[in-house]
Amino acid sequence: MSIELGRIDHIGIAVSDMAEAIALYEGTLGMPLVHREELTSQGLDAALLEVGEGHIELLGPTVEDSPVGRFIARDGEGLHHVAYLVDDIELALEGLAEQGVVLIDPEPRIGIQNRRVAFVHHESVRGVLTELIEPAG
Amino acid sequence: MSIELGRIDHIGIAVSDMAEAIALYEGTLGMPLVHREELTSQGLDAALLEVGEGHIELLGPTVEDSPVGRFIARDGEGLHHVAYLVDDIELALEGLAEQGVVLIDPEPRIGIQNRRVAFVHHESVRGVLTELIEPAG
Repeated sequence: MSIELGRIDHIGIAVSDMAEAIALYEGTLGMPLVHREELTSQGLDAALLEVGEGHIELLGPTVEDSPVGRFIARDGEGLHHVAYLVDDIELALEGLAEQGVVLIDPEPRIGIQNRRVAFVHHESVRGVLTELIEPAG
Repeated sequence: MSIELGRIDHIGIAVSDMAEAIALYEGTLGMPLVHREELTSQGLDAALLEVGEGHIELLGPTVEDSPVGRFIARDGEGLHHVAYLVDDIELALEGLAEQGVVLIDPEPRIGIQNRRVAFVHHESVRGVLTELIEPAG
């Protein structure tokens, strides 16, 4: 059975220079910077910029040997992941697992803005690192 | 001056097997398939699957020596581009060019669903191939 996804919550973009990237997305592309947070456990500085109902999430590694640091070392800056809104993350993870989709996080964990998130392995979804995320608040 | 982007219209994903990719995004991830089109000039078979107000655009090359065919040969399947809705594509392109952003299409061209589109060079926007697209209809 299919799972129920809400909408695209955000697109994660790996960047090597957060100040320059924020200047571009905020100043040139006109997206308001609405949140900034350091995710120490991920070695990550993250910024959310609003576009419509969704966001661009800029991801700057604070240490080289971190998931995003290794991503940039291997592939350079660019598209990193897509996150979809789900109302019930446990139900969605269960539905995916039942269909043989490989989960990086079989149980939700706490991500940006204290929201519950879980990642799906990119090899299970045509090369796209995919995040499920519950609504804020 | 900043340009004005609407929302994320779609995310383009390069895939090597359209039938399998549609089965995954429609059947497993529950996104209705709402449009399918062959873009002969791009050597491309494209499918739009609805998620919220936006779409996932699956991109399957019909010939190896095409932009998406070369992308897959180099990087494998995965995230290819992000498209933002703009009300006035000429105005947006003018605004970006004024700020030194490199445009692949300085003038709009006709893309999927006969919509006017233009691509921005990925090197100008932190490694992200970026599309501007006018609303349908």
